[in-house]
Amino acid sequence: MAGNVQVRLKARPAGWVKESDFEIVDADRPVAGSGQLLLKNLWLSLDPYMRGRMDDAKSYAASVALGDVMVGGTISVVQASNHPGFKPGQHVVGHLGWQQYAVSDGAGLRVVEGGRIPLQAYLGAVGMPGVTAWYGLTQIGKPKAGETVVVSAASGAVGSVVGQIAKMHGCRAVGIAGGREKCDFVTGELGFDACVDYKGDDLFGALKAATPGGIDVYFDNVGGVVLDTVLRRLNAFARIPLCGLISGYNATEQYGLKNIRSLLVNRAAIQGFIVSDHLDRWPEALKDLAGWVAEGRVRYRESVAHGIESAPKAFIGMLRGENFGKQLVKIQEA
Amino acid sequence: MAGNVQVRLKARPAGWVKESDFEIVDADRPVAGSGQLLLKNLWLSLDPYMRGRMDDAKSYAASVALGDVMVGGTISVVQASNHPGFKPGQHVVGHLGWQQYAVSDGAGLRVVEGGRIPLQAYLGAVGMPGVTAWYGLTQIGKPKAGETVVVSAASGAVGSVVGQIAKMHGCRAVGIAGGREKCDFVTGELGFDACVDYKGDDLFGALKAATPGGIDVYFDNVGGVVLDTVLRRLNAFARIPLCGLISGYNATEQYGLKNIRSLLVNRAAIQGFIVSDHLDRWPEALKDLAGWVAEGRVRYRESVAHGIESAPKAFIGMLRGENFGKQLVKIQEA
Repeated sequence: MAGNVQVRLKARPAGWVKESDFEIVDADRPVAGSGQLLLKNLWLSLDPYMRGRMDDAKSYAASVALGDVMVGGTISVVQASNHPGFKPGQHVVGHLGWQQYAVSDGAGLRVVEGGRIPLQAYLGAVGMPGVTAWYGLTQIGKPKAGETVVVSAASGAVGSVVGQIAKMHGCRAVGIAGGREKCDFVTGELGFDACVDYKGDDLFGALKAATPGGIDVYFDNVGGVVLDTVLRRLNAFARIPLCGLISGYNATEQYGLKNIRSLLVNRAAIQGFIVSDHLDRWPEALKDLAGWVAEGRVRYRESVAHGIESAPKAFIGMLRGENFGKQLVKIQEA
Repeated sequence: MAGNVQVRLKARPAGWVKESDFEIVDADRPVAGSGQLLLKNLWLSLDPYMRGRMDDAKSYAASVALGDVMVGGTISVVQASNHPGFKPGQHVVGHLGWQQYAVSDGAGLRVVEGGRIPLQAYLGAVGMPGVTAWYGLTQIGKPKAGETVVVSAASGAVGSVVGQIAKMHGCRAVGIAGGREKCDFVTGELGFDACVDYKGDDLFGALKAATPGGIDVYFDNVGGVVLDTVLRRLNAFARIPLCGLISGYNATEQYGLKNIRSLLVNRAAIQGFIVSDHLDRWPEALKDLAGWVAEGRVRYRESVAHGIESAPKAFIGMLRGENFGKQLVKIQEA
């Protein structure tokens, strides 16, 4: 019988994640029991939130235990089913983790169809990252026509969708991304009005030039010095949906945010959110996003690593911003 | 003719305010023209927001120009009136500044009566600070019965009212104040459940002991290390009305806030606000507050400096936390 290559958490990272924090194990392939189905995992999503699951600090979700398979969103094909709701050959979105095969009782699985939309988009623009963008921007950012919306990690899975939805709302969309190539993509391919390279010499000056009317909404994926700099450009009654703080996830010493006074002077708000708190809004968001992707109104880029063994390296690269767009692992062919 | 002693802004402070940043001037007493009234100022309110008006940095309100009389809330008695809406002998709340006399066209004046409520309370618990507490706690903090509400500067004009309203909502009210005497007042006189002395050795440990169930609402008047420490105790979906940042007002180097990640993990929000943005809610708030003060359900303490010349020193003391309760200047007898 063929195996089931898995990536397990071997050690809790101290600071930056290392490949040696993971262990590649070839386990027995599981068998579907009564009421269960056997899934062959095709695509794995790599997302910044996974860094938090590697720690044992208090967070909004349980840590991955040492020795357990890493958690993660997946696209799978049903190989065998003892469950009345699923048939072999169907594709499902689920959370089956960093491994080649899994069994499931069907809980949390959603059947999807490729075709109009590529299957892996259900892990990106038409999945959790897309809904994150949709929820944070429309429900917390509440953009109004004519306002300026800034988003960090703008070429990424979440940021790219934020800016494109902002444009649909009649806003000026300004991205922040690392490097000229990503910025060119953000303005050229995604249609943002401007993009600031955070690796440049003068972040504040570049941001000021890109936001002549100040900033009304800042969708934050990174925290740290970028957030601190944005605070200096806020307009009155600005809103900051706080989605991620990737710049600090691997830091052993946290950046100290100095410009909090801007929140008071401008009567502005920072609101942390987690998209899984708002499952009631997912159907509406997914319907919007599927339509926009199918129509080409929401575009995106993917970075694809091949084989489950490549997941640790790709994950570490993503945390460093080395990916370009949505980071995926193509686990295997169907 | 007698004069009009005024306190004018002489220099913009670099860091801590100094008495030499002010100038005491004996100006001509003004005369009420057509449609005007002459006011004799009895009480002056000293408030942290005035520190911001001394800078020329962008803020929510215009700076005081060099050479101008310092701005400030006042209780006055009408001495002469050429205005149909006011009669000599009436008391009015207004913004007539750091001076003994002023003329006015009546704009922004509100007639008040002493008796059930001491006149100067209209500058405190039944005035701007009370409405600030009422608005920030009830409209942004949204406390629910059983939750824990923490407030800094808890013995002060705003903080003392915040905790007492929190108790009315069935919350655990925890103050943060400087020194044993203030903490004893907060728990003993104001009825808070606990009070943490921020000057103690172990702020986090003391806060943890005082908030065994975590923190649901933090009404922040101070910012800095106190805010950073509170962030470590937040519960999921916590709310932080950001009212003031007095710890940083005189700092030349801002404190760097390290625990912003707590906002994300806990899906918590910080919302800056200024009570003057919400004038539509003042009548409702003032009605509540007047009733509570008259019934003894909202109690407070005052620090009174005597004579307008004492205002600069009293103001500097307040910024250092040397006052105890609402800081007032008794300008003169009626």
